[in-house]
Amino acid sequence: MIPTQSTPAVLGRARELVAPALRSAIANLSPELRSVAEYHLGWVDAAGQPIGGDGGKGVRPALALLSAEAAGAPGWVGVPGGVAVELVHNFSLIHDDLIDNDKERRHRPTVWALFGVGRAVIVGDALVALAQQIVLEPFELAMAAGLVASPELAALLDGRRAARVVADATAAMIAGQALDMAFESVPYVDVERCLAMEAGKTGALFGCAASIGAVLAGAEAPVVSALDRYGMELGLAFQAVDDLLGIWGDPATTGKPTWSDLRARKKSLPVSAALAGGGGLADELAALLSEPELDEPAIARIAQLVEACGGRDLAEAEADRRLKGALGALGEVPLAERPCIELAELAHFVVERKY
Amino acid sequence: MIPTQSTPAVLGRARELVAPALRSAIANLSPELRSVAEYHLGWVDAAGQPIGGDGGKGVRPALALLSAEAAGAPGWVGVPGGVAVELVHNFSLIHDDLIDNDKERRHRPTVWALFGVGRAVIVGDALVALAQQIVLEPFELAMAAGLVASPELAALLDGRRAARVVADATAAMIAGQALDMAFESVPYVDVERCLAMEAGKTGALFGCAASIGAVLAGAEAPVVSALDRYGMELGLAFQAVDDLLGIWGDPATTGKPTWSDLRARKKSLPVSAALAGGGGLADELAALLSEPELDEPAIARIAQLVEACGGRDLAEAEADRRLKGALGALGEVPLAERPCIELAELAHFVVERKY
Repeated sequence: MIPTQSTPAVLGRARELVAPALRSAIANLSPELRSVAEYHLGWVDAAGQPIGGDGGKGVRPALALLSAEAAGAPGWVGVPGGVAVELVHNFSLIHDDLIDNDKERRHRPTVWALFGVGRAVIVGDALVALAQQIVLEPFELAMAAGLVASPELAALLDGRRAARVVADATAAMIAGQALDMAFESVPYVDVERCLAMEAGKTGALFGCAASIGAVLAGAEAPVVSALDRYGMELGLAFQAVDDLLGIWGDPATTGKPTWSDLRARKKSLPVSAALAGGGGLADELAALLSEPELDEPAIARIAQLVEACGGRDLAEAEADRRLKGALGALGEVPLAERPCIELAELAHFVVERKY
Repeated sequence: MIPTQSTPAVLGRARELVAPALRSAIANLSPELRSVAEYHLGWVDAAGQPIGGDGGKGVRPALALLSAEAAGAPGWVGVPGGVAVELVHNFSLIHDDLIDNDKERRHRPTVWALFGVGRAVIVGDALVALAQQIVLEPFELAMAAGLVASPELAALLDGRRAARVVADATAAMIAGQALDMAFESVPYVDVERCLAMEAGKTGALFGCAASIGAVLAGAEAPVVSALDRYGMELGLAFQAVDDLLGIWGDPATTGKPTWSDLRARKKSLPVSAALAGGGGLADELAALLSEPELDEPAIARIAQLVEACGGRDLAEAEADRRLKGALGALGEVPLAERPCIELAELAHFVVERKY
C-alpha cells in the first residue's frame, strides 16, 4: 500500500537539490529585481531580512526530479528543469495576484500589494525570462549549483527541446489565465470550457514539470508523452482540489481569505458544474452571481447553492477521476520502478490535501 | 554619400517580409489575447475593426533582416528573429506603459488604459512567451509564412542559439527597466549609471535585433559580436534621441504628451547630465525634481534648467558619438557590402529623427 497521509520523501529530496540551484538562479537577477523575488519566494521579509522560508511545498520541482529518474537518468538532470518550472510558476503567481487583485498569499501581503503594481509586473517578467535562460543552458546551472563536475556530462542535456517544452507550457498557462479572466465577466461557462481553461492554467505546467526531466535526459517521445499526460491529469486533479479549497477551504490552511474565488466570481469547476445542472437553485445561483455587489450573506448563500446544486460533489469526483488518469499514464510506458512509485505517491499526496 | 533624409528602402522591404510572418505568429494566440495584441499593434481599433495600421517604423525587423544578409544569408533567414524581437519589443511597450502610468501611445489609449491592468499584464506575458516559441522553431514560422519551400533548408536555422540571444536580451531589457524605475525615487543618478540603464533598457534588444539574423544563419562568433555591438551602440544613440524627444519633442510627432519624461521624474540622460554638472542652476533643478507635486510652470522651468545645465548638448553629443560607434563596429569584420551600406543608412535614419 502507498502511504497517502505522510509527506512524500521526494519533496525533501527535491528541495535539497533544487533549492540551492534556485537560489543560484535568483542570484543572477539585478538587486532591484532580486530583493522582490526573494520576498515573494518567502526567503526574506519586506525589509529584506532572511526569514528562512522556502516557498510552497515544491511539488513541481519534485516532479522534475522524478521525471529524470523515471527516464533512467540521475535526479540532478531534472534540476534545471525544476528550477525553470518553479520560476515560471512563481512568475504566474506574482502576475495572477495582481490580475485577480489578491492582497494576500501564504499569510503575507502579495508583491503588488507590498511593492506596487509596477514592481509586480517587472519582477514577474524577470522570472519568466530567467526561466528561459536557465533551461536553454541547463549545464551552466548544473555546474554552478555543484550538481555535476564534468562539463562533458552536463552538455548532454537537451536544452533546446526543454526550452520548447517550457515555452509551450508557459504560453498555454497564459492562455488559460486569459480565459479564466474572460469567464469572470460572463454569466455562464459550461463544464467542458471550464476544464479546458484549467488544462491550460494549471495542467500545462504540471505536464511540463512531470516531463522536463525526461526531456533533458533525451528520453524517447513515448516516455516524454506519458509523463506529460501524467502531469496534465495530476494538474487537473490538483486544480479541482484547489477550486474546492477556494470555496470551502480553511483560510488558516490555504492562506487566502474565505470564499476568495466566489468574491472574484470565478467560474471555477464547482461553480460551472452547479450552474450546468439547471433548476430553481441554479437559477438562484445565476441571479446572485450577476448581482453588481455581493455582501457576506450573499456570498455564503452562493457557497451553499454551489454545494446544493452538486458542484462540490462533481469537483470531488473530477479530482478522483484525474488522479486515476495520472496513475494510469504511468503504466503506459516502461519507467524506472522506484521513481514511478514515488510519482504515484506524490499524486496521492497532491490530491488528498486537506480542505 | 549616404542619403540620410529619406526613409531607407530596407524598412519597406523588411515590412513586406516580416509583417505577414508577424500576423501569422499573432494568429496563434487565443482570441482573448489576440484581439488586445492586434489593438496594440495598430491593426484594429478598440472595437476590433481593422484599421490598416502597422505599428511603428519597423526598425528592429529591418535590422534582423539586414543582419542575416550581412552574414551572407538570404534575408528571410532573419525573419523569425525579426518577429521574435518585435514581439519582445511590444511586450515591453505594453508593460512599460502600465508601469509608467502612460495613458497614450501613438495618439491612442494604451492597452492598460483601454482594457485594464489585468489584460495589459497577461497580453504582454503572452507576447514574450510567443517570441520564445517562434525563435526556438524558426523554420516552423518560415514555412508557415511561405518564406521558404524546403523544410531541409529551413531546418538549418540555429534556433537554440537564437533563443538564447533573445532570452538574454529580454532579461537585460527587464533589468534596465527595473533600474529606470528605481531611478525615479532617487534624487540623483550619475551619467555612467544612466547609460548602463539605457544599455539594458534599449541597447540590448537593438543588439539582439542586429545580430539575430546572423545567429540564425549560423555565422561565426566575431561576425555576431560585431553586429551585436553595432546594434548596442545604435540602441544607445536611439535612446539618447528618445530622451531628447521626451523633453523637447513635438507631441504631434512623438505621440506622447509634452514633457512626459519630466512629469515621471525620469533620470534620463539629459537630466542626469544636467544634475552632474553641479552649480546653482543644477541645485535649483535638483530642488524642483524633489518637490512632491509639479505644476506646469515648474515642469517648464525644469526643461529650461536641463538645457541651461548642458543636458541637451550632452545628449546630442552622446547620440552622435554612439552613431559613430555603431558605424565603426560595421568595419570590424568582413560583411556583405550592400546590407552593410543599408545598416549604415538605417543608423543615420534612426539617429537623425526630427525632434
